[in-house]
Amino acid sequence: MNSFGQKLKFSTFGESHGVAIGCLLDGVPAGLCIDETYIQNELDRRKPGKTEFETARKEEDKVEILSGVFEGKSTGTPIAMVIYNTNQKSKDYSNIKDVFRPGHADFTYFYKYGIRDYRGGGRSSARETAARVAAGAIAKLMLKELNIEVLSGICEVDGIKSEQLDYEAAKKSVIYALDAGKEQEQKDAIIRAKNDHDSVGGVSRVLVKGAPKGLGQPLYYKLDAILADAMMGINAVKAVEIGDGVLSASVKGSQNNDAIRTNGFVTNHSGGILGGISNGEDIVMNVYFKPTPSIFKEQKTVTTKNEEVDFSLKGRHDPCVAIRGTIVCEAMAALVIADMLLLNMGSYMEGVLKYYK
Amino acid sequence: MNSFGQKLKFSTFGESHGVAIGCLLDGVPAGLCIDETYIQNELDRRKPGKTEFETARKEEDKVEILSGVFEGKSTGTPIAMVIYNTNQKSKDYSNIKDVFRPGHADFTYFYKYGIRDYRGGGRSSARETAARVAAGAIAKLMLKELNIEVLSGICEVDGIKSEQLDYEAAKKSVIYALDAGKEQEQKDAIIRAKNDHDSVGGVSRVLVKGAPKGLGQPLYYKLDAILADAMMGINAVKAVEIGDGVLSASVKGSQNNDAIRTNGFVTNHSGGILGGISNGEDIVMNVYFKPTPSIFKEQKTVTTKNEEVDFSLKGRHDPCVAIRGTIVCEAMAALVIADMLLLNMGSYMEGVLKYYK
Amino acid sequence: MNSFGQKLKFSTFGESHGVAIGCLLDGVPAGLCIDETYIQNELDRRKPGKTEFETARKEEDKVEILSGVFEGKSTGTPIAMVIYNTNQKSKDYSNIKDVFRPGHADFTYFYKYGIRDYRGGGRSSARETAARVAAGAIAKLMLKELNIEVLSGICEVDGIKSEQLDYEAAKKSVIYALDAGKEQEQKDAIIRAKNDHDSVGGVSRVLVKGAPKGLGQPLYYKLDAILADAMMGINAVKAVEIGDGVLSASVKGSQNNDAIRTNGFVTNHSGGILGGISNGEDIVMNVYFKPTPSIFKEQKTVTTKNEEVDFSLKGRHDPCVAIRGTIVCEAMAALVIADMLLLNMGSYMEGVLKYYK
Amino acid sequence: MNSFGQKLKFSTFGESHGVAIGCLLDGVPAGLCIDETYIQNELDRRKPGKTEFETARKEEDKVEILSGVFEGKSTGTPIAMVIYNTNQKSKDYSNIKDVFRPGHADFTYFYKYGIRDYRGGGRSSARETAARVAAGAIAKLMLKELNIEVLSGICEVDGIKSEQLDYEAAKKSVIYALDAGKEQEQKDAIIRAKNDHDSVGGVSRVLVKGAPKGLGQPLYYKLDAILADAMMGINAVKAVEIGDGVLSASVKGSQNNDAIRTNGFVTNHSGGILGGISNGEDIVMNVYFKPTPSIFKEQKTVTTKNEEVDFSLKGRHDPCVAIRGTIVCEAMAALVIADMLLLNMGSYMEGVLKYYK
Repeated sequence: MNSFGQKLKFSTFGESHGVAIGCLLDGVPAGLCIDETYIQNELDRRKPGKTEFETARKEEDKVEILSGVFEGKSTGTPIAMVIYNTNQKSKDYSNIKDVFRPGHADFTYFYKYGIRDYRGGGRSSARETAARVAAGAIAKLMLKELNIEVLSGICEVDGIKSEQLDYEAAKKSVIYALDAGKEQEQKDAIIRAKNDHDSVGGVSRVLVKGAPKGLGQPLYYKLDAILADAMMGINAVKAVEIGDGVLSASVKGSQNNDAIRTNGFVTNHSGGILGGISNGEDIVMNVYFKPTPSIFKEQKTVTTKNEEVDFSLKGRHDPCVAIRGTIVCEAMAALVIADMLLLNMGSYMEGVLKYYK
Repeated sequence: MNSFGQKLKFSTFGESHGVAIGCLLDGVPAGLCIDETYIQNELDRRKPGKTEFETARKEEDKVEILSGVFEGKSTGTPIAMVIYNTNQKSKDYSNIKDVFRPGHADFTYFYKYGIRDYRGGGRSSARETAARVAAGAIAKLMLKELNIEVLSGICEVDGIKSEQLDYEAAKKSVIYALDAGKEQEQKDAIIRAKNDHDSVGGVSRVLVKGAPKGLGQPLYYKLDAILADAMMGINAVKAVEIGDGVLSASVKGSQNNDAIRTNGFVTNHSGGILGGISNGEDIVMNVYFKPTPSIFKEQKTVTTKNEEVDFSLKGRHDPCVAIRGTIVCEAMAALVIADMLLLNMGSYMEGVLKYYK
Repeated sequence: MNSFGQKLKFSTFGESHGVAIGCLLDGVPAGLCIDETYIQNELDRRKPGKTEFETARKEEDKVEILSGVFEGKSTGTPIAMVIYNTNQKSKDYSNIKDVFRPGHADFTYFYKYGIRDYRGGGRSSARETAARVAAGAIAKLMLKELNIEVLSGICEVDGIKSEQLDYEAAKKSVIYALDAGKEQEQKDAIIRAKNDHDSVGGVSRVLVKGAPKGLGQPLYYKLDAILADAMMGINAVKAVEIGDGVLSASVKGSQNNDAIRTNGFVTNHSGGILGGISNGEDIVMNVYFKPTPSIFKEQKTVTTKNEEVDFSLKGRHDPCVAIRGTIVCEAMAALVIADMLLLNMGSYMEGVLKYYK
Repeated sequence: MNSFGQKLKFSTFGESHGVAIGCLLDGVPAGLCIDETYIQNELDRRKPGKTEFETARKEEDKVEILSGVFEGKSTGTPIAMVIYNTNQKSKDYSNIKDVFRPGHADFTYFYKYGIRDYRGGGRSSARETAARVAAGAIAKLMLKELNIEVLSGICEVDGIKSEQLDYEAAKKSVIYALDAGKEQEQKDAIIRAKNDHDSVGGVSRVLVKGAPKGLGQPLYYKLDAILADAMMGINAVKAVEIGDGVLSASVKGSQNNDAIRTNGFVTNHSGGILGGISNGEDIVMNVYFKPTPSIFKEQKTVTTKNEEVDFSLKGRHDPCVAIRGTIVCEAMAALVIADMLLLNMGSYMEGVLKYYK
């Protein structure tokens, strides 16, 4: 329930304002070089408090590896990583203790479990995604050995769409903008909403380069279905497209089919996946994030005793969760691809015989 | 790999042109009345060959229950259902035997498994979805006992959008159109494409009424994530939206948040799911189908020996897979909701004690 | 719940006196030659009604493959096999309809599910094991490609122990006796019990030859633990030993440790498994079957309404379930080893790189 | 692979001489009082270094809860527990760095993963079982709410069998002896072996009182099969018996069947399980531990380069692993029963309806 993946499986734990968050990553092949600096760098990309486009809540997000690594290499046993919470101390929750925040999970968690952990979203806080990024970093290290790369960036903020999809530009941008020409406009929209005590939505585009043909299991562990699961499971995501996605529902078959030539597919409307299995082309998807539900405008809600109240949230929040969310999309995509690679081993008898020789 | 669900788990088997297709449904509570007529009716809704809007391939799709039912009631043991293929006989595959059909899974299956089952798509054929509908029918029978209903219909064909969302109208429509006022226009688009040897895409809208608060598991078996997995895993689906979906990425937080009052949520932008858990409102989603890849226009492709050819497909195919696909969406949604209900049992200690009293 | 295995997973269905029993085997690598005659032969070894040492109930146990095989080879998709029940027709259950048979599962099933399928044990009947044997036969075909062999035989009946462990002798014996010198004595014990309206217990010994080093997952999918699960899950099994088993609890460490030399282990007290992982030696285990609970002597029991009755069972039953049980042990061992082989692929990075080259 | 359980699932991590060991326990119902003192007490029962009958290695085994508990109660989210290693510092492994210890897992781990973590057994060390005891303690807290108790004790050491099975006596005994009259003799055997640089085996008996009828899933998640899996998966265990176990293979059906009367079963040869499902009687099993493989006598072995050597182990080791092992058996039994209780919810439709009312 708190785990993801089959052959490469990770499980996370921890609440936003508890002692620590962390994860267990099980199934990493032995002998993989575990570059701790790289893992920390990935966490730093997601880390809050770096710029004005993110929540002011500062978290060091220092990851510590507790197991599964010996002399710099994975041992094949579970890799446990922990990130202690350092900035959860003195926060005053008195004004939300008994109030359900609109757009948040505290309402549903309360009715599911019958008890309430009111501290900053508890388990449902986006803070948990730091653990995913740590696990994803190790997946990326594994993919690198197989020459597979996972990239991402922001292709839309508050309805302002990118025209270019430049993943190198995204790496340099503080909002991971894929289009440097649209970046300022997108930043302005974020700041405007922030000043207005409001928030904006955004879209992350994810690209996987170099994935071999044949990844994905028919019929209920399909590559596209599991990517959809992985992306939709990220906080605030409300829609996922593979390849042309929504658009493909309004074109003709003759327009949407990708012709095949000896050197590969002529177009990539399919987003690199056919019948749930990778076809050797770039795997591409768009992930739609709703605006942060934590806004400072007055809102109508009820208390845990079902009394109506008007209240204004306080605290520190991201004005656009998609920004840091794109790093989580990358991590999740890397974890899915790595899992599928390991699952794929043994699909045909010849491969099995080769492996055991 | 060929299974779906945790507590209510189904597995399917069978190829389009093999002996039979079928499924195993495991986890159905004992004592549920298994109405075989209802199951057959659900299959008939998906069955091909009924009207000109579907493939002319006629399949009787007669389901036979092999186990798990005794004296009209489920026994708690796995329910095996089989549908023998009756119309796969004389088909001539000579023109596609060595040719990859653009937009199809035969290319990826070949590279995954190293062998080729060229008979009508083999396992990747949409015919497999009949088995999902059979399993879904039993899930619906279980949901009915808990006053939960799953409905669906077509809200867009070839870019022509419904303005009304009338699920009663959809029940009466041969293309399951949600808007009777748009139905003729949508039908015309299908026939036009068909006559032009082409195909069109479409969108299914799914509605779950009466689901209790608290369904869905944090953080990796979330209700929305698993619905996305279930829907994206249906043949030809390329995008999934929960609630406002794509739209929510371009509005402000103050517009997107659903205010809460003592009698429930004022709006339902969230589509009935917050933090991956149902909030008691209607659960709504849109499922985007690409146009059928099987078209009769000439297309550029390669053979299994990677030689370039131009070829024209023959045979019988749906001009718009979304039509019959919406019945599959319904079935999958029912299976997900039923699974989540069973999984949810035991979430809190008080409930456990109540169950064992 | 009705499935076993992770990478090679099988699920069974069907009741003793229902329409059919069968199984789904998922995860078989594509390209494996599926020898249907071999599968049927394995079923024939388990089939009842061949000799006086078994139940007189005759079942043809004719297996039919419904999917997953094309032109004699596995396609990588699930292999569904069905065995229709042919001899369940006219049986009169009136004398056991409301009576719990001592030593049987009907009592526990009734209290678990709240309903009663009184027909010959329903799902809990040993008849279900025919489906395991069918699946196991395919696992054996896969193991053969890797030069791994699974053998078994009866090493004890009614307390009469074998002194020789001759697996070739077992193949020729109608009671699969491992010691031809003890066979007659063991047969006599069975017939004596049968004539006395009673039944006897027995022990199956299973041997896996040629398994490579490294099979088994730490720490909760250990080879020995999963073998124990597989064996204890067979009807009537009450104890499982790996290697020296029970004996090892009463010897010294210096006696029990197997010394290692360059050409392997000097002794095999461990039964080929250390730390849950195979060490390259023969894998050996003993599986203890209780006497058939179905006896014709008068017994004290209660009805479904909890009224005390004395009753005598009628019908046809095995006087010693261990005999046919040993074939099931073999099948389950083959399935476990094949699953572990597939799971083991990807344990180390070098192997992953080799597979993808 | 490093996880156990379905609905109540735990995963462990950590190596004997790494930074920490720990576990994640997922699926604990919300609202359970988490008594940290009780958990620590359970760990103290397994803790090494308390008496001369155990290894002299002292570990504080102080457990820290990182998540899933708020204001003394479980929240329904995963409970992460960590135990930092405090006594792994200066140990000199030079004499075993390249040598495989007979009877140990280092040989098989090396061939599985291709790399070697020579530090005190790494992941395969019995130290990992501390994490199981921590998880088991929480399972026991949950069982207590349902009036179910799990007890255990030592019923045999070095072939010296208990005649009494007094679980209250076991609680007071430093070797958890079930028979106070045999305790001294058993202790003497341990000390004698220790002084002789050798080790002894032993047997743990486990008793579950108060389990309701109906626990266990047919046919591949049977209660007895999963208990066998759980017990056989404990370090050094080589055999598992349910109820009469081995004995039942050499008696007649008429002796082995338990007669049923209105107030329950007259005898309990079955050990409380029929057809893989609990029957309401005491659940009993015997778990056989081999003697500790770590002995100080000279042994014949090979190095990682497959060179033959004679070597003598140094260090601190348990002379009889069964002693501390029995606490692990208890923990695992508690985890299995708790998991089965949660899984069982929803077995029949009436129960589902009751839960949702």
